[in-house]
Amino acid sequence: MDAIVHFKPTDLDITVEAGLGWEALNDYLEDYRLMFPVDPGPGATVGGCVTNNSSGTNATRYGAAFANVVSLTVVLADGTVVRTKKRPRKTSAGYNLNGLFTGSEGTLGIITEVTVKLHVKPKVERVAVVPFKTIKDAANSVNEFLISGISLNAIELLDDKMMKCVNDSGETTRKWTQAPTLFLKIGGSNDEVVKSTINQTKEISAQHGSLDFQFASNEDETVELWSARKVALWSTINQGKLKNDDIQLWTTDTAVPISQLPRYLVEVKKTIDDAGLENTLVAHIGDGNAHSFILYHPEEHAKAERIVHNIVKKAIELEGTCTGEHGIGYGKIDLLEEELGLIPIDVMRKLKLALDPHRILNPDKVFRMDPNKKLE
Amino acid sequence: MDAIVHFKPTDLDITVEAGLGWEALNDYLEDYRLMFPVDPGPGATVGGCVTNNSSGTNATRYGAAFANVVSLTVVLADGTVVRTKKRPRKTSAGYNLNGLFTGSEGTLGIITEVTVKLHVKPKVERVAVVPFKTIKDAANSVNEFLISGISLNAIELLDDKMMKCVNDSGETTRKWTQAPTLFLKIGGSNDEVVKSTINQTKEISAQHGSLDFQFASNEDETVELWSARKVALWSTINQGKLKNDDIQLWTTDTAVPISQLPRYLVEVKKTIDDAGLENTLVAHIGDGNAHSFILYHPEEHAKAERIVHNIVKKAIELEGTCTGEHGIGYGKIDLLEEELGLIPIDVMRKLKLALDPHRILNPDKVFRMDPNKKLE
Repeated sequence: MDAIVHFKPTDLDITVEAGLGWEALNDYLEDYRLMFPVDPGPGATVGGCVTNNSSGTNATRYGAAFANVVSLTVVLADGTVVRTKKRPRKTSAGYNLNGLFTGSEGTLGIITEVTVKLHVKPKVERVAVVPFKTIKDAANSVNEFLISGISLNAIELLDDKMMKCVNDSGETTRKWTQAPTLFLKIGGSNDEVVKSTINQTKEISAQHGSLDFQFASNEDETVELWSARKVALWSTINQGKLKNDDIQLWTTDTAVPISQLPRYLVEVKKTIDDAGLENTLVAHIGDGNAHSFILYHPEEHAKAERIVHNIVKKAIELEGTCTGEHGIGYGKIDLLEEELGLIPIDVMRKLKLALDPHRILNPDKVFRMDPNKKLE
Repeated sequence: MDAIVHFKPTDLDITVEAGLGWEALNDYLEDYRLMFPVDPGPGATVGGCVTNNSSGTNATRYGAAFANVVSLTVVLADGTVVRTKKRPRKTSAGYNLNGLFTGSEGTLGIITEVTVKLHVKPKVERVAVVPFKTIKDAANSVNEFLISGISLNAIELLDDKMMKCVNDSGETTRKWTQAPTLFLKIGGSNDEVVKSTINQTKEISAQHGSLDFQFASNEDETVELWSARKVALWSTINQGKLKNDDIQLWTTDTAVPISQLPRYLVEVKKTIDDAGLENTLVAHIGDGNAHSFILYHPEEHAKAERIVHNIVKKAIELEGTCTGEHGIGYGKIDLLEEELGLIPIDVMRKLKLALDPHRILNPDKVFRMDPNKKLE
């Protein structure tokens, strides 16, 4: 289930079996200077990316899985095999079944083959690392990048505690300023374009009080500068484990409209800090999507749960979502109800029953099949 | 039904009532240097753009309506009002109802309010006009722009006959080379970026035998150069009417995978020419989407229909679609069956019946409610 089924580089798409890993796919595409832009955690399959509507650091430029599906082969509950589309890059031919199956978490059918859009890797891509005095300064700077129409390929934020964690981990070759820091990918089709964009980015950052502006002048430095972003999650876990082997990690996944980010991020951190739990923050800040990594001892589970609920509630109040990219599963069924209300979920339930009347595909995931029954 | 409901420029989204025109919306956004990128024919409403999954010249860069919907308010057949999402730019919270309603042509519900993504207008945008000896040269040049990762904001092709029509119409201030011609929009956040991209584009065009490369050095010239693209459709109609007031126009809307375009476009033109019908061609060539404008007398209707069917059949053979952006309606129901087969249409029918069991919303549009009954 991990074969490449059809590939013609000049079509900028590829058809693969659903079990192929997104990293293996990108390794394969390397020679062609092409990429599948969805980059969730390591180990995910391309089919998993689609069924979960995954994204990652590239989504701010290339969109989530949803925006990159051309066609799907799906086995329905009754065994019918559906091929949703042929391979046009653009079509208005009938209902967009791609849009329905993408993100349905295996509840409407089992995806066995996917055709996805590919993107041309920027001929030149450099990383800039920009620490700020406060998260608010960093977030305001991002708002201005976006409003200025500067085309950045990734816009990530790590908070001061995360930067300390990365330093303590010793997993990168350099020591970083322990301040809220933006990691930017700046790409283009030639050196001139990239250089000019770097200068504009630097200027805006300075206007918002950046403490420094390091950028990679070659490929090796690019990899080195991005390394801190890459080790972020694991360095938090390792740091926790050093202190206590029982330590648990809770990852949040809220997203809010981008103008709300500065105040939202400040409030999220305060909420967790006030509860006395260690935490770090990584945000796909260009999409308004933030992950707090919260460390807690098993006996603090109820407290952690309460805090996370408050963080999600705040996101929903600001017209955001309980999950930017991780999905609902069983864990966020109640939060989904809080976010959307019961009416859209009733619509989802009708669609589910139309395609899976015997409820055999991931029943009670995303929403309860019986709206009156609470899960155990 | 054409009010602006909510607008916060820094969120890069806007909520409007469905009856607002896409042009009025863009006029409103002008002051903020923002744009709603979907640009179908004049007069369409934003709600219509969504329900039809429209696109236009900007889709190659910003995607079709589908990629630009944040949230919808939809009235279902039973009167229920659904708000599909809140306003996060990215979410994996439950089924993507936006993806289902977008492009469903009013068969699943009536869209009354939409929140759409806005894009920042490029600070600098210039138009280049590039005639080639053959359509194949032009199409090959486009393939190389795409593969080179050059970021163009629009990539349009007009064939030699269309260029002649534009000249004959007298509706633009200059006379154009009567050859297959690319119209390119090249944008960026500053002059340097745009200039550098123009140079790269010019170089690739020359490698593919471009006959000329005119580009606008200021705003006025930009508007002037784009004018020929703008009058294309109407100039064909007017040209036809001059000869015979009864003349009819048939517009095709096929799309094929982009590597297939050079041979496909050549074949399409040959098919129509061989039948002795006047025709011009405009293609959203960056998306593989082509419109032939075919002129015919009322008594040639059957012939025109047969030719169009052959053009669509060829697109489907090449894994393309019978409609890139115009939708199915009643007219393309049989073509949709040819394109996808009966299985995906059965799935659509199940979804339709789940949401509209009494079949009151646009019944028999997109597909027949009764699969065994042919329409009159």
